[in-house]
Amino acid sequence: MSKETITNIKIEKASTSKINEVDFSNLAFGNVFTDHMFVCDYENGAWQEPQITPYQKISLDPSARVFHYGQAVFEGMKAYKDEQDDIWLFRPKENFERINKSAARLAMPEFPEDFFFEGLNTLLKLEKDWIKKGFGNSLYIRPFVIATESGVSASPANKYKFMIICSPAQSYYGGEVRVKIADHYSRAASGGFGFAKAAGNYAGQFYPTSIANKEGFQQIIWTDANTHEYLEEAGTMNIFFRIGDKLITCPISDRILDGVTRKSVIAMAKDLDIDVDIRPIKVTEVIEAANNGSLKEIFGSGTAAVINPIAGFGFKGDTWELPKIENSFASKIKQAIMDIQYNISEDKFGWRVKV
Amino acid sequence: MSKETITNIKIEKASTSKINEVDFSNLAFGNVFTDHMFVCDYENGAWQEPQITPYQKISLDPSARVFHYGQAVFEGMKAYKDEQDDIWLFRPKENFERINKSAARLAMPEFPEDFFFEGLNTLLKLEKDWIKKGFGNSLYIRPFVIATESGVSASPANKYKFMIICSPAQSYYGGEVRVKIADHYSRAASGGFGFAKAAGNYAGQFYPTSIANKEGFQQIIWTDANTHEYLEEAGTMNIFFRIGDKLITCPISDRILDGVTRKSVIAMAKDLDIDVDIRPIKVTEVIEAANNGSLKEIFGSGTAAVINPIAGFGFKGDTWELPKIENSFASKIKQAIMDIQYNISEDKFGWRVKV
Ligand SMILES: Cc1ncc(COP(=O)(O)O)c(C=O)c1O
Ligand SMILES: Cc1ncc(COP(=O)(O)O)c(C=O)c1O
Repeated sequence: MSKETITNIKIEKASTSKINEVDFSNLAFGNVFTDHMFVCDYENGAWQEPQITPYQKISLDPSARVFHYGQAVFEGMKAYKDEQDDIWLFRPKENFERINKSAARLAMPEFPEDFFFEGLNTLLKLEKDWIKKGFGNSLYIRPFVIATESGVSASPANKYKFMIICSPAQSYYGGEVRVKIADHYSRAASGGFGFAKAAGNYAGQFYPTSIANKEGFQQIIWTDANTHEYLEEAGTMNIFFRIGDKLITCPISDRILDGVTRKSVIAMAKDLDIDVDIRPIKVTEVIEAANNGSLKEIFGSGTAAVINPIAGFGFKGDTWELPKIENSFASKIKQAIMDIQYNISEDKFGWRVKV
Repeated sequence: MSKETITNIKIEKASTSKINEVDFSNLAFGNVFTDHMFVCDYENGAWQEPQITPYQKISLDPSARVFHYGQAVFEGMKAYKDEQDDIWLFRPKENFERINKSAARLAMPEFPEDFFFEGLNTLLKLEKDWIKKGFGNSLYIRPFVIATESGVSASPANKYKFMIICSPAQSYYGGEVRVKIADHYSRAASGGFGFAKAAGNYAGQFYPTSIANKEGFQQIIWTDANTHEYLEEAGTMNIFFRIGDKLITCPISDRILDGVTRKSVIAMAKDLDIDVDIRPIKVTEVIEAANNGSLKEIFGSGTAAVINPIAGFGFKGDTWELPKIENSFASKIKQAIMDIQYNISEDKFGWRVKV
């Protein structure tokens, strides 16, 4: 993947860098972007010449399909710098494959693998100074595709724009997180596109989340839309429950994003000799476990925070607090995954990819 | 609603008009736009000065929320010109109220009524030559709101753009329409936002529709995501079934768009002494009626075509053709509604509003 000569990407460098204006010790998530972006347009049935340009606004017709019919998919991944200044990606092929799965479900063209990785690598090499050393520091990478064709007829567009933009990041979540288990609103339908990282899966969560926020919860754990009996995932994280010494997470379905971190947590937990059960998990089972003391941990998994421990939850007006715990599965697994991401430990899974 | 002096809209007129380049007898839906657009930005917690400008591209940061999290809602309505050159809207308050319901569900700010109608009326007066006389001709009006704030954190934006763009239209659908009844894919979840006219509800339909197209159907009739037993709506139309002499349509729910045309069809049918049943309707009931000959008509209702007769349907690999019918409910109701829209008949419902 680490090629030295990229022949077909047109590069226009930024005349000045914004990097010195950025306070890297005080970054809000996803607000500051690097000096360049990768852009590739799709038209006449093919992806055109890929380009790297200075980070800049894009100009679209007001009737562009993305504004009206939501043809938009994205990815979220990170680059890490080790102590030798080498830059690493974590299982990037998973993100590449997932954006194309998302695109296919939204009737959007798939993006070629060589364009994706050559674009990404070239961009990251150009932006290497934006990736800071130190545990928790990273460059958040946002590949995305939007329908740019103008015209408001409700049909798939014939023109798209694939872009990669990058934003320096520190650890994502701060503070204790309490979650509300959904009992009325829902995130995705069976037979829908909840498994896709599609723009349309996010806006619908904001209003229910704002209600949860007012009730004292930071996030929602979504349940199945049909019965609200089964736990599915959080807004931007998959979700794990530790009952006794067993780690439980629900299976992937067409309603649930197949998280790269989820996969990695499952593999790493097994490697750490933790029992993992992948099976449907009922709200009532978790409440019962909370009541009888066997619920030890809940945590979310996602690229942003790797693992995000959850301190308590609410359901239909009742709330439960989890006991404080030493040597949690959450911290053990998180440490082990981050050690791979930052090239501190051996990578027996082959997850780390050098840029 | 028809005010003569609009004080607070800043108007910048186009220096030249594109109107002479347009072949009004040969219009594809939603491809050509008029000379001007209405724009109003939301920031600092308030809608700013509304403007009418020449129709032009808009420029957004690549990290604008609409591209990543799908905060985007829209409306579809029409202006009609009568033989006296007066211009009419059809139940526009319904569209105004619906865009704000859609916005609220997506945690977007509501748009003020006076801005909406002053903006719309001013724009339509400016574009009056784009509205052609003659049954079936109209100006399709597309109000929409998108989240423009930059930054890729998954939370509601603080900046939005409300716009109105207009496109001259002829009758929407051509040819016979056969529909596939969904048995696997679905459009909306209970507890989701299927009732909203939100961008995220459309992109997910394109891929299943492309499969249906290959099987010989032009559109899909969506069923409930849970069981696929109940008929809900089509991609951009509500749906009616005539069994014997009864017209049946399913009730509105949080999965179904509350169509203005649907409401009007129900009211007009009753006025024409047609029995209307608003109740859940099963796929098996329609198939049984098709088999025993009591299924007389199926039609969709929507702003684009008013009423769109359906010639046949398929379900799980089987297909049914509807008998040809004289004096259909579809054509009677469509005629009666269009007579009101074009100021041909008396408007006892008070649906017609002069611009
Ligand atoms: C809905 C949803 N679930 C789960 C995740 C976690 O996926 P990953 O581990 O690949 O970041 C994400 C990603 O941000 C997400 O958006
Ligand atoms: C999903 C959906 N259902 C139904 C309709 C019909 O609604 P209306 O009659 O208000 O145009 C539309 C509108 O285009 C729609 O998008």
